[in-house]
Amino acid sequence: MAKVGVVLSGCGVFDGSEIHEAVITLLALDRAGAEVIMAAPDVELEVVDHYSGKASGEKRNVLVESARIARGKIIPLSELGADDIDALIFPGGFGAAKNLCDFAVKGTDATAIPEVARIVREVHKAGKPIAAICIAPAILAAVFEGGGFSPRITIGTDEETAAALGGMGAEHVSCPVEEFVVDEEQKLVTTPAYMLGEHVRDVATGIEKCVAEVLRMAGS
Amino acid sequence: MAKVGVVLSGCGVFDGSEIHEAVITLLALDRAGAEVIMAAPDVELEVVDHYSGKASGEKRNVLVESARIARGKIIPLSELGADDIDALIFPGGFGAAKNLCDFAVKGTDATAIPEVARIVREVHKAGKPIAAICIAPAILAAVFEGGGFSPRITIGTDEETAAALGGMGAEHVSCPVEEFVVDEEQKLVTTPAYMLGEHVRDVATGIEKCVAEVLRMAGS
Repeated sequence: MAKVGVVLSGCGVFDGSEIHEAVITLLALDRAGAEVIMAAPDVELEVVDHYSGKASGEKRNVLVESARIARGKIIPLSELGADDIDALIFPGGFGAAKNLCDFAVKGTDATAIPEVARIVREVHKAGKPIAAICIAPAILAAVFEGGGFSPRITIGTDEETAAALGGMGAEHVSCPVEEFVVDEEQKLVTTPAYMLGEHVRDVATGIEKCVAEVLRMAGS
Repeated sequence: MAKVGVVLSGCGVFDGSEIHEAVITLLALDRAGAEVIMAAPDVELEVVDHYSGKASGEKRNVLVESARIARGKIIPLSELGADDIDALIFPGGFGAAKNLCDFAVKGTDATAIPEVARIVREVHKAGKPIAAICIAPAILAAVFEGGGFSPRITIGTDEETAAALGGMGAEHVSCPVEEFVVDEEQKLVTTPAYMLGEHVRDVATGIEKCVAEVLRMAGS
């Protein structure tokens, strides 16, 4: 049974993990018989009111809010190591681009927060696969920038975002919502999800394929 | 294409809608080609920290937090009428028993909040099906108490909770997590979900069957 780390970034598309993407990931992993370890960094997030769409000025904690998706079964990201897992998955949502890295603000100059950069490098170095969904491939581009290779990833078809990933040295591949892109050599799997999808059924199709590919790469 | 109202009660199992149940419901509806209208009451909830499991003393708004699951596409429950929809679904989570009714506190003496009682009575009177997942069947028992019939519903196998539903005049039927219970005459469909389930895959199986049955009853 593969053990898979799922890194959350809060709870809600506008300031945290995209909830549909996270749940579809967890369901696909469970249906494939994988064991899931959920983790999130113990850092603050700036709250967006999801009814009005506006920043509320409030702050909440990423780990505490992520625990809503995890039904309380979650650990601080600092406690997750590459030895604990066979693969790592980042669901999307603006939290991936605001709380796990600063791509939403800095674009091409983005860097990941230290804990996120650490786990990505550890898992990659261990030769284990990493999946990133929706906007989360920006984390991979940021962490691997200057690493001597060009990660082959997708965020769908948005040209401006794709150009920003290219600016960090990534090779962006256009991809429809129901499909995924593989970097076989670097063991990276990415799918556009709500970067592109209008319907949750299409997002689910892409994520289910993405999860299956990650588990194949993990040898399970 | 059937139009289905999904009533949320917040965002998180301990103080709102159970997130997995809500997303699985939305995905099953979308895959079946149904149109979804999400709604939630504009009332306060008492926040539970989902990492510690303890009440935080904070208050949030049920409609605003429910909007996280709905990706912003949600209306106040007061704006939802039986004429707008072909069926109504209540996902579970403690929010269903704390924010939509007071079953979690009052047990057999529970009543639903006025907006919830109104929509349930309207939809039932219109002869349209209503589904309730997990602990949400308690809402149906509370609303239909004294209505001259005994709604046939399940919350799984928990004897104490089942007895409390019986105390409100409901007929409780034990049911495994992957199955559902139908009251054909009253057009009610219920499934235990996380009242009983340990794995999201089992919860999903029950909810998917429950959604299919509701859509069959709605004639779509």
